This record gives sequence, structure tokens and C-alpha cells, in this order.
Amino acid sequence: MDKRVFGVDIGGTTVKMGLFTSEGDLLDKWEIPTRTENNGSNILPDIAQSIKKKMEEKNIQMSDVTGVGVSVPGPVDDKGIVHKCVNLGWGAFDIDEEMRKYIDLPVFAGNDANAAALGEVWKGGGGGKENVVVVTLGTGVGGGIIVNGRILSGSHGAGGEIGHLHMNDNETEKCGCGNYGCLEQYASATGIARLANRKLASCSRPSVLRDAKSMNAKVVFDAVKAGDEVACEVAEEFGEILGKGLANIADVINPELYVIGGGVSKAGQIVIDYVKKYFVKYVFHGSRGTEFTLATLGNDAGIYGSAKLVLDGVKQS
Amino acid sequence: MDKRVFGVDIGGTTVKMGLFTSEGDLLDKWEIPTRTENNGSNILPDIAQSIKKKMEEKNIQMSDVTGVGVSVPGPVDDKGIVHKCVNLGWGAFDIDEEMRKYIDLPVFAGNDANAAALGEVWKGGGGGKENVVVVTLGTGVGGGIIVNGRILSGSHGAGGEIGHLHMNDNETEKCGCGNYGCLEQYASATGIARLANRKLASCSRPSVLRDAKSMNAKVVFDAVKAGDEVACEVAEEFGEILGKGLANIADVINPELYVIGGGVSKAGQIVIDYVKKYFVKYVFHGSRGTEFTLATLGNDAGIYGSAKLVLDGVKQS
Repeated sequence: MDKRVFGVDIGGTTVKMGLFTSEGDLLDKWEIPTRTENNGSNILPDIAQSIKKKMEEKNIQMSDVTGVGVSVPGPVDDKGIVHKCVNLGWGAFDIDEEMRKYIDLPVFAGNDANAAALGEVWKGGGGGKENVVVVTLGTGVGGGIIVNGRILSGSHGAGGEIGHLHMNDNETEKCGCGNYGCLEQYASATGIARLANRKLASCSRPSVLRDAKSMNAKVVFDAVKAGDEVACEVAEEFGEILGKGLANIADVINPELYVIGGGVSKAGQIVIDYVKKYFVKYVFHGSRGTEFTLATLGNDAGIYGSAKLVLDGVKQS
Repeated sequence: MDKRVFGVDIGGTTVKMGLFTSEGDLLDKWEIPTRTENNGSNILPDIAQSIKKKMEEKNIQMSDVTGVGVSVPGPVDDKGIVHKCVNLGWGAFDIDEEMRKYIDLPVFAGNDANAAALGEVWKGGGGGKENVVVVTLGTGVGGGIIVNGRILSGSHGAGGEIGHLHMNDNETEKCGCGNYGCLEQYASATGIARLANRKLASCSRPSVLRDAKSMNAKVVFDAVKAGDEVACEVAEEFGEILGKGLANIADVINPELYVIGGGVSKAGQIVIDYVKKYFVKYVFHGSRGTEFTLATLGNDAGIYGSAKLVLDGVKQS
């Protein structure tokens, strides 16, 4: 039998799980609830049990499985040590060691944003390129950096925290991280809504945005597509701040490609157009040719990336 | 005989050369002039001849030499292709292939700033750490980024161009790169002199800086050490801009250590004190523990790093 790999993406409410071939073909996917009570002590046993059940259902033997990749919402270092996952109630521990108590398979762990990036680069918008930054524009702004085909996780698992690039000295509202003027205060879904509300409050010009029941990134980009002048100015502000941030990242690591994902990216190519306009303005000429594309795997990026963690980890060891 | 390695650092006026053991002990160092006439076509033959002469002098056989590392003032990609060295008159070519015409040894090429960083990390201030950013504050601001012990050269050799991080939307003077508000317009030796001259022009307060025959970073930091109020304000501005830039780099790659080198770093620990004050203010909390130290190899960093290119390259292939 061809070898199988499990990719597991642990979120705050559900655990997404996927069964893959070693070529990265998704054979099956399903979800289980994330039980965060008792400091999340049920989460890994639940996952192990669900994997065993799936193996029984598909008649897969232990010897057929290369390993289990697990992505978690918190920093993970190169040795697979989880450093703290507030949303799961977890402290610091070795996830492979812990999982082995419940299932005897090699486990490879990674941060969720990084794993999603690895998935996008492997089987999504990244098209297998070696040097890619995946930018996730969701509730916050997450980043996953792939250098020479591997996740750049940083010395303490805090690599790719691009949502907290300092972009504005004059910001008076505090970011969730405690600093002021972070990239995600302007370029996340909530950041775009904030920019729009600020713009509306600063002028009395007519705009379809004034009629919106609730402000969000979709409302803003729909208005941009309809030619709404105020919405277009909001998109310019968004594009300038994110373009400038991505230019600074390119000056540091010179990727060949940016993959833009997350809820905001559902507005499509127009998001890239606004960002790229300012990226080109601010970036050092050596990185001016960096390409941009949209993410394609959506919520499955995490399970793909987790599966890839196993294949890379096995290759490395 | 223990194996030998040559480290060669090609500059615009001189070529620095070093003979190393494979443990990185420097046995001998010397220089030859860089002959840039005729599109720099003599440079590689001159280097080959100088290596042969040194081998004869030291009675070293070809089979005793692991290889030659060469650092050049321009972008070099992962395959050792030099993309253009304006200062040498060079276009794009494969430096290993070209050198083999003159001496039959494996050649490994890298960008000079990156090689100097590799040298500092290997045998200098970096203390052998795996994730380090070396910041060179000289005429410009150069960067060398080491991730998992290897140079991060980027997809087109433009990684580590940290001198061109965009730091200021309100700058009216153009940087050498064509953009406005680049980090090196404030944090290089010339940038610090510019900040000082601007500060003096903006006020009429007394300062020892007003008596300086020519303004430079040494004059400014000497005045800071003497307690000059205006000079201290200049140092704060320098520290805030560089600290903010290094914070943004840390949010991307989360290094464990910054090594500060170049002419400006000769002022000593006080440079780090001003930078770290603002770094801690602006950086994401996950990178707040990043350490700072001064470079120790000075102008020899390039030959050390070039030698290390050989050892890493041989290990990799």
C-alpha cells in the first residue's frame, strides 16, 4: 500500500483533519470539535482516537502511515515544542512526546499560520515555489514565510508575525498585541472596516458605505467595484499600508512570490491591484519583480501544510 | 596535511585574501589591488595567480585545498551566479565556471555583505548562533541574514537589503536607490551626519557639534558621551529609526541575535543602547528578548565568511 499521511489543523472550536497520499492528494477530510476544557487535555487524545477510527474505517495499518502533522494556534519551535496556545489552554510541551501516549506514530508540529502557508505553497497558489510569503488577511494579519521550501519559524517560533509590523507612528488606538500602529490595524478585515469608518467620520461626502448595515471588508470592496469614490480612497489607504509593509518584508527576504489569502482576499484580484501599486513604489529595486497571486486552498491550507510537515520532517531526519 | 581553504573578499579598490584551516583559523592574510579596467576582466586571473603563488610559498598542493570562497560587491544567487557588480565592471556570469579557467579549484561565491555576516556569525560577534542578523552601519546600511546557519540570499540575491527599508513618508531627499525615506538615510554614518546637520539647522541651541570641522558619526557619538544635549537628541532620532527598522525585521524573521558592525559601531555599546531602547518599544512581544552585540572581526569578516561559504558549500553538495 502507498504510504498515508494525516494532516491535522487544531483551531479554537474545531479540529480539521485530512488523510493524504504521500504525493499530497487529499483522500478524505473531516472535523471533530476542539474540547478546550481542563486546559485542553482532551484535544490530543481526541485526535488520536479519530485517527485510529479513520484507519480502521479505511483498513490502514500503522506501518502504512508515515506520520501525523499537527498545526496549532501558537508558536512552535524547530524542535516541535509548543510554547503556549492560549486559545487551547495549553502551556509549553513536546507535542510528539505527548501524542505518543495515545498513538504510536511520529508527530510533526508547526504553527497554524506557517503550516497554512506551507500548504498553499505546496498545493495551492504558491505553485511549488521555493521562496514565498503567504499573507493571510483575516480577523488579523498572519504571515507564513517559506525560504528554500521550508517554513521560517524563527529562533523562538515568532517568525512571520507580519501583522505586527510597525506602520504608523501616529496611531492612538492600541492593537491587540499592546503596541500602536501595527499592520493588522489597517490591513485585516477588521482593519479595513476601521479605515472605512474613520473615513466616513472624517467627511460628509455621499457614499454607499453610509448605507451599510455593518461595515466589513466585503462591503468596502463591493463599493470599490461599483466605483464608490469614498470606498476607493479607503482601498488606496489599505493598499498603501499593506504595500509598504510587504515592500519592507521583501527588502529583508526577497521572496519570488506573495500569496494573498484570508477572508479579505475573497474580493479577488482587485486586492492585489491596490497592494501591488504601492509595493512597487516602496520596495528596493532588486525586489520590484516579486509576483502576487491569490491563495486557492481556503480553509484546507492548514491540513495540507500539516501533512507536508510530516513529509519534510521525515526527509530531514 | 589538514585541508586548507581560501577566503577572498573583492572590493572596489583592493581584494582581501585569507588562508584558513578547515576549522576557520586564519593562517595568513594579504591584499592585492582590484584592477577594474577592461570590465574587471583581470580580477579573477589576478586572484587565481595570487592563490597559486601563496600555495607555492606555503608548499600547499591542489589536493590540500578544499576550495576558494569569493565574496563580491553585488547580488549573487544560490547557484553562484553573479548578477552584476557595477563597481567591478562585471555583468552576469557563473563565477565558479569563470575561475576554473585560471585555477582548478571549486569556487563558492556570495554577496559581500552576506559573506561578512556569515563570517561574523561563524568566528566573530555571532558566537556560532544559528539565527542572526548582522547590521553593518557604514557609508550605507547593509544587512546579512543568517537563518538556520545559512545566508538568506533571497530569490534574486536581494535578501538582506535592509538599508532600503522604508522608514519615513515625509522625506524630501532622495536615497541613492531612487526611493525616499530609506533606513540608510538616517542610520548609516552619512545618515547620522545628515541628522546632526538638520538638527543644528533647526535650532540655535549651543552644541559642541557646531564646532566640528566636519560632521560624522564619531563626532556625534563623542559629543553624546560628553553629554552634549543636541547630540543626544540626534542619537535618539538615530536610535528610534534604526530600532524601529530592526523591530520590523524581527517581526518577520525572529532572529536570536543582532550583531552591529561597520564604522558607526566603533562608538561601542552606546550605539546598541540607543537602538535597543526603541527596538523593545516597537517589536512584537515574541521577539522582545532578541539580543544585541557588537561585531568583532572588522574588515576581516569578509574573508572569514568567504572561507565559510566553501565549507558550507562542500557540505551541501
